Amino acid sequence: MITVLSGGTGTPKMLQGLKEIVDPEDINVIVNTVENNYFSGLYVAGDIDTVMYTLVDIINDEFWHGIKGDTYITNERLRDMGMPELLLIGDKDRANKIQKTLLLREGYSLSEIVKIQCEYLGVKSKVIPMSDEDSDISIVTDKGELSFHDFLIKERMEPEVVDVVFSSVAPAPGVIDLIRESDMVIIGPSNPITSISPILNMDGVVDALKDSYVVAVSPMIGDGAVSGPASKFMNALGYESTALGVSKMYESFLDKFIIDNEDAGLKSEIEKYIDEVVVCNTIMKTLDDKKSLCEKIL
Amino acid sequence: MITVLSGGTGTPKMLQGLKEIVDPEDINVIVNTVENNYFSGLYVAGDIDTVMYTLVDIINDEFWHGIKGDTYITNERLRDMGMPELLLIGDKDRANKIQKTLLLREGYSLSEIVKIQCEYLGVKSKVIPMSDEDSDISIVTDKGELSFHDFLIKERMEPEVVDVVFSSVAPAPGVIDLIRESDMVIIGPSNPITSISPILNMDGVVDALKDSYVVAVSPMIGDGAVSGPASKFMNALGYESTALGVSKMYESFLDKFIIDNEDAGLKSEIEKYIDEVVVCNTIMKTLDDKKSLCEKIL
Repeated sequence: MITVLSGGTGTPKMLQGLKEIVDPEDINVIVNTVENNYFSGLYVAGDIDTVMYTLVDIINDEFWHGIKGDTYITNERLRDMGMPELLLIGDKDRANKIQKTLLLREGYSLSEIVKIQCEYLGVKSKVIPMSDEDSDISIVTDKGELSFHDFLIKERMEPEVVDVVFSSVAPAPGVIDLIRESDMVIIGPSNPITSISPILNMDGVVDALKDSYVVAVSPMIGDGAVSGPASKFMNALGYESTALGVSKMYESFLDKFIIDNEDAGLKSEIEKYIDEVVVCNTIMKTLDDKKSLCEKIL
Repeated sequence: MITVLSGGTGTPKMLQGLKEIVDPEDINVIVNTVENNYFSGLYVAGDIDTVMYTLVDIINDEFWHGIKGDTYITNERLRDMGMPELLLIGDKDRANKIQKTLLLREGYSLSEIVKIQCEYLGVKSKVIPMSDEDSDISIVTDKGELSFHDFLIKERMEPEVVDVVFSSVAPAPGVIDLIRESDMVIIGPSNPITSISPILNMDGVVDALKDSYVVAVSPMIGDGAVSGPASKFMNALGYESTALGVSKMYESFLDKFIIDNEDAGLKSEIEKYIDEVVVCNTIMKTLDDKKSLCEKIL
């Protein structure tokens, strides 16, 4: 049994490969929830939806959110009416978000709702939110404290980042047990600060990881992230924005670290922190890239 | 200037004719709000939407709600997911209902929102909700007290009606002035109990109608309503479920009453209550029927 810690883009890409070479029923995915929020009255659990859609091959893998081939009739109409639609929500995808919103209001926990939605979608892997509690992330910048989405979308990641702050929440039922019971835990190539740290910061997670065999894929190549604003966040928190910086973050529990060919020169430095360092191609353009990376992980 | 009191089906049909023979800018429509409610998290003002859509020729006049040619992608997905979607809301129509829900939450009044939506849709007539306050209607039946929508949809209008109860609310800004300033008030062929009575029951409305020239079209032909459950409601409140019963309800303020050819035999009896009684075809199948009826009204 393998448990994957996931954010919303890099790790889902990796999952596309993993589910081809491991029985999906033997895969668990614990998903970051810190970016979950209400947008225009709808509860949006972006990373969870992306993971669920990825596991049943309906993810829109141009945007890495939403459903492939979805229409945007309601969204376009709302924009036309002058409503501030920050997110591009498709019509089928909207149903998913409406269901979450209504079931939360009825008192279901996020875990329960994700289970219901996984059954509906036919997801064979177990997908669980890292926490059922509301968590929050904010980016302290030279332009003030911003919500993560405002930083990403309204401010286009431009402000200087001074700090990243997120609330501390309790792990959802099963999170700690899944980590402890797995033969391997994979930390996907997701943003180490905004996607993985919120999971690591919950009570009991790092202790469980120390007792497990943990492999991570570096989301950093050279001195930048493959995608997204990870560099700014890592620098703000005092880490080099490189695979070396990531290895220092994960040092206390990581057994094996996969870094990109381009970072071969960092291998011996990283080996001071991590037992096993594997150098290979980590850029996932094709399904073969993804499968080949997962074979290196396993 | 003409002001029309409207519910959600009969009167909009009549409006299709009226707007062809009267400049739409000279038409005001005061719309019943007593059936407004939240469904699956969305604020639905069904009669108002039907009136707005009718006035710009986009009404789905098969169902008399929603937008002609709309798609139902989100709705179908929600039903497929097992969500109890009581209403059939199309994708474009959903945007309208989302906007109402969000603007209400931001503190806009229903009148203000309807004004914004009329501007967006290009409605030239003035459409105002009867009230900005939440109102409520419930049907007391042999199976207990039911919400109007449960009675209509879940119970398919089958239970025996004992009473119809609705909360008393204040008229929206402009309602009383529009009635007083109009050259003619038309009470359309809407359900006299569930659509028109809620308007009549608000403080000042009947007094304003007494000072105005008021024409009503009977929604009853023979001993039943042209459509919907009006008969059961009228009987429950002690009125005959005929044009005669309606004339007794409207007696105190009505100047002219239009009844159907089929009810010609009731004319002399109705003339005991109403000064002028006109007998003509009131069944509106074609646009010509509608225009011809409106010519009789004017």
